[in-house]
Amino acid sequence: MPQTLDQQMAFLAEIEKLKSVTRATPIHDASRPENSAEHSWTLALYAVILADQAPAGVDIFRVVRMLLIHDLVEIDVGDVPIHSQNGTAHDSTAIQEAEAAAAARIFGLLPKPLGDDLHALWTEFEAHETPDAIYAKSLDRAQPVLLNLQAGGGSWIDYDVTLAQVEERVGTKVARGLPALWDWVRARITPWFEARG
Amino acid sequence: MPQTLDQQMAFLAEIEKLKSVTRATPIHDASRPENSAEHSWTLALYAVILADQAPAGVDIFRVVRMLLIHDLVEIDVGDVPIHSQNGTAHDSTAIQEAEAAAAARIFGLLPKPLGDDLHALWTEFEAHETPDAIYAKSLDRAQPVLLNLQAGGGSWIDYDVTLAQVEERVGTKVARGLPALWDWVRARITPWFEARG
Ligand SMILES: [Ca+2]
Repeated sequence: MPQTLDQQMAFLAEIEKLKSVTRATPIHDASRPENSAEHSWTLALYAVILADQAPAGVDIFRVVRMLLIHDLVEIDVGDVPIHSQNGTAHDSTAIQEAEAAAAARIFGLLPKPLGDDLHALWTEFEAHETPDAIYAKSLDRAQPVLLNLQAGGGSWIDYDVTLAQVEERVGTKVARGLPALWDWVRARITPWFEARG
Repeated sequence: MPQTLDQQMAFLAEIEKLKSVTRATPIHDASRPENSAEHSWTLALYAVILADQAPAGVDIFRVVRMLLIHDLVEIDVGDVPIHSQNGTAHDSTAIQEAEAAAAARIFGLLPKPLGDDLHALWTEFEAHETPDAIYAKSLDRAQPVLLNLQAGGGSWIDYDVTLAQVEERVGTKVARGLPALWDWVRARITPWFEARG
């Protein structure tokens, strides 16, 4: 037990570092960049609040756990913005390999089977093929769009993004798990892009 | 449904503001104060990782939901540091009334019964009498202690806190739900206070 607790607490000390990983999206009042720890908190609450929108068979607690840990690899790798390098950087092989190594290191701090369980949950999220992962990924793509809108444009301005690019890079993934949510979001962001011209 | 989704999304936009509420505890590298959104993320992961330490009968998903929403009232009221005003400010009647009004406003943004459910969960956390709330409160008290230690002293220095005060204001609450964790934590913070003299 002492060794188990030592391992658990080593992991809990390590994850504190996610608060230093900044994202391309600013927070609500555009005063600073969002970090990946508070982003993960927001997504866990999205999963709880929008549970009635989730496809049948989704296990909300599995999704919440998945979203709480989904960005921990960024402690080693950093956040790769969706719209960086014209939308191509995010899925590069080099980044995927670095993230896999980070997952092995970070989840490896935990006692088994807990570490293996969370590592498997992260792998499932990354593959976004199961109903739980598809729902989780839809939330992960929707929240930054709404935060950009709330902040007055955010990373859309920084990366000079068009509505068609948001549709292609983000909208398709939101709509896969949450089609009604994407309709709702698109109706609210369209005026911003039209006004920008 | 559109009205329900409007209400859900209004709540999810409102909670973004918790990222602007700063706490007395610095983050891991002492580079800036922690905010209440990222603090809540950390606690949700504490609940998941330390589930094997929880008293019998604790429902971890209820605890996670409780911790995700436990600080939302700070959007209106701000964070009241444990060690401020020599440890007395935190439980004042004026602050409790302001927090109750904030809870009514913020959870009132949601459709029923979801808003009522989360409001009841917040009230249960504040009362810290049920097993779920006692476990949640123990985590809420433990994490800032460990973060202060990781950051080199944090709010212990700012408020000139003694080990006896940490024991009284924090340790008793951690030990109520997680006695083995408090033993573990106390053993690790004692050298810091002894070195400070
Ligand atoms: Ca708290």
